[in-house]
Amino acid sequence: MKKVLDIIKPAVRGLRAYSLSPHRAQTKLNQNENPWDMSLVLRQEILNQFEDMRWSRYPDFIPASLHERLADFACLRPDHIIAGNGSNELIQAVLMVTVGPKKRVLICEPTFALYRQVATVLGGDVESISLTNSLQYNSDLLFSVVEERQPEVTIICSPNNPSGCVISDEDLVKLLGIARGLVVIDEAYHEFAEHSVVPLLEDHENLIVLRTFSKAMALAALRVGYLMGQPDVVREIRKAVLPYNLNAFSQMAAEMAVDRYETDLRPLVKRIINERQRLFDQLSQIRSLTPLASKGNFMLVRTEIEPKVVFEELLLRDVLVRDVSGYPMLKKYFRVSVGRPEENDELLAGLREICGE
Amino acid sequence: MKKVLDIIKPAVRGLRAYSLSPHRAQTKLNQNENPWDMSLVLRQEILNQFEDMRWSRYPDFIPASLHERLADFACLRPDHIIAGNGSNELIQAVLMVTVGPKKRVLICEPTFALYRQVATVLGGDVESISLTNSLQYNSDLLFSVVEERQPEVTIICSPNNPSGCVISDEDLVKLLGIARGLVVIDEAYHEFAEHSVVPLLEDHENLIVLRTFSKAMALAALRVGYLMGQPDVVREIRKAVLPYNLNAFSQMAAEMAVDRYETDLRPLVKRIINERQRLFDQLSQIRSLTPLASKGNFMLVRTEIEPKVVFEELLLRDVLVRDVSGYPMLKKYFRVSVGRPEENDELLAGLREICGE
Repeated sequence: MKKVLDIIKPAVRGLRAYSLSPHRAQTKLNQNENPWDMSLVLRQEILNQFEDMRWSRYPDFIPASLHERLADFACLRPDHIIAGNGSNELIQAVLMVTVGPKKRVLICEPTFALYRQVATVLGGDVESISLTNSLQYNSDLLFSVVEERQPEVTIICSPNNPSGCVISDEDLVKLLGIARGLVVIDEAYHEFAEHSVVPLLEDHENLIVLRTFSKAMALAALRVGYLMGQPDVVREIRKAVLPYNLNAFSQMAAEMAVDRYETDLRPLVKRIINERQRLFDQLSQIRSLTPLASKGNFMLVRTEIEPKVVFEELLLRDVLVRDVSGYPMLKKYFRVSVGRPEENDELLAGLREICGE
Repeated sequence: MKKVLDIIKPAVRGLRAYSLSPHRAQTKLNQNENPWDMSLVLRQEILNQFEDMRWSRYPDFIPASLHERLADFACLRPDHIIAGNGSNELIQAVLMVTVGPKKRVLICEPTFALYRQVATVLGGDVESISLTNSLQYNSDLLFSVVEERQPEVTIICSPNNPSGCVISDEDLVKLLGIARGLVVIDEAYHEFAEHSVVPLLEDHENLIVLRTFSKAMALAALRVGYLMGQPDVVREIRKAVLPYNLNAFSQMAAEMAVDRYETDLRPLVKRIINERQRLFDQLSQIRSLTPLASKGNFMLVRTEIEPKVVFEELLLRDVLVRDVSGYPMLKKYFRVSVGRPEENDELLAGLREICGE
């Protein structure tokens, strides 16, 4: 028998596939989605527009009209921007043009699992530093490791999934000065922190910023993300982005979401931020639970009861949260997304039953 | 000044970006699309279904329901299949798990430009053999090069874009026996050849087959493709496929296209095959043009007049074809997609004016 699997790169064969159990529940607080949808009126407008298009025709080679809208939105130029099939695709593109065997990617864990996965598939060396014991970025450690190791790429998720911590602009500027490689800030959750690092792009050619339409923009089903950087760097990254990477429907929906952000989506973000505070306060009052303050639309909760038990008990009550106890440092934690008020009430009621008042 | 571009891999920096000029024309025969759309009724059914979904929620981690339908469609099991954001994404995934520095990818040129692009970004060595002078696969050369060089991956587009030639099952079986690496058959156009190599999957663990929804399936705007292979190999390739790679809308539309292929789409394929013959016959009668018989929904046309001139003159008449004169071996050719009868008539009328009767 031929050993066809020998053709697969050893780093890939050694990798466990990244996956998520397909649990379902009425109250879904496991993926940090926007718990409200775009309005029906807005969705109908998008559907009407798409009905008139020719589905058999390729979308734009590059989604130029979306790039223009995103440029306006972020106060940049279109050549600063690449839109993609979710920001995942753009993380992959950044790593494809920079990483291979003997190239280093630095991440701070616990964080979004995909960074490690993609860097490993590409044959790179993933180096990881830990968050502090209070699950914040350890800036001094970050500076010294970057200075010493000079990774090709440093990826920082800010606000960080799952801890909700952020890197300050001051620390980021210092890091950008030290790093000879690229520094990628994944600001998927920036709307909930009411802060963006995009203004730093102008003076820092090694900064790359990623954003997504899957959180505040309420379009997770449609898979749209975008990358911003200096045009010279963006031009190189674009070579690893597949042509026609963004389907015509998602492109149209994303354009509409940008146009209507202030009127339709920002008010939802405000409500989520308010709910985050209420949820934090209520969780703090439950015996055996300690929520961790977060700048995202989610938070970690430390539990004296086994996280897996909390997860299963909540699922029995039709509430789905994220069991993150397999992540580094998070053996005693689960993660909850901030839902609609009634969803958060369901969660709180369930937790009070499971953990005692 | 910091030289941030030094971080980009040299193979990437040396690459010219793959791009397509955004010409527009009433008669669009440049991208081998299905010239007919799905029926309005079918499209409305898809839109209605999607209206009721929650756009703010992630699609399936893996598009399992589409995998099941595709498995039925291809007489395989779901674990043979990966659906993706166009087959481009799946070409990339195959190469990501197999190719890096010092790894070889063999292609037969002229062919679809993306194979070389992606393999190069990944740092692989692209080796290329030419089609025969009559633009057919050179099987003997292919056998001997594969035997001698044993590339990690051999990619064969069959029917080949842009030449329309195919590799026979007999030759493919021989090749699969010689090759220790993977052999990828990109059968994007297989419906127009009324032939598929999928039945060979059962006995050949190093065979990978790619298909797309962008041609016969009339969904180019929505970017769906799929890969088929042995489950052991598919499992490894899946590690390079990003989670949530297929948006919910495209997934739903693809499921509907599979369900309705026999009733709604296959009749269109038949019409395209008939039109291909008529177009070939008519082109053969134009002085200074020689069409090349093709198994795809397109064909190359050899022209005594400069292809760029033919392209420009057709564009003035609102007909868009593909100038392929920059491809290896194709200095004297342009490519036309087979359009609707009235579109083909527009093309023929234009060519008669430009080239003489």
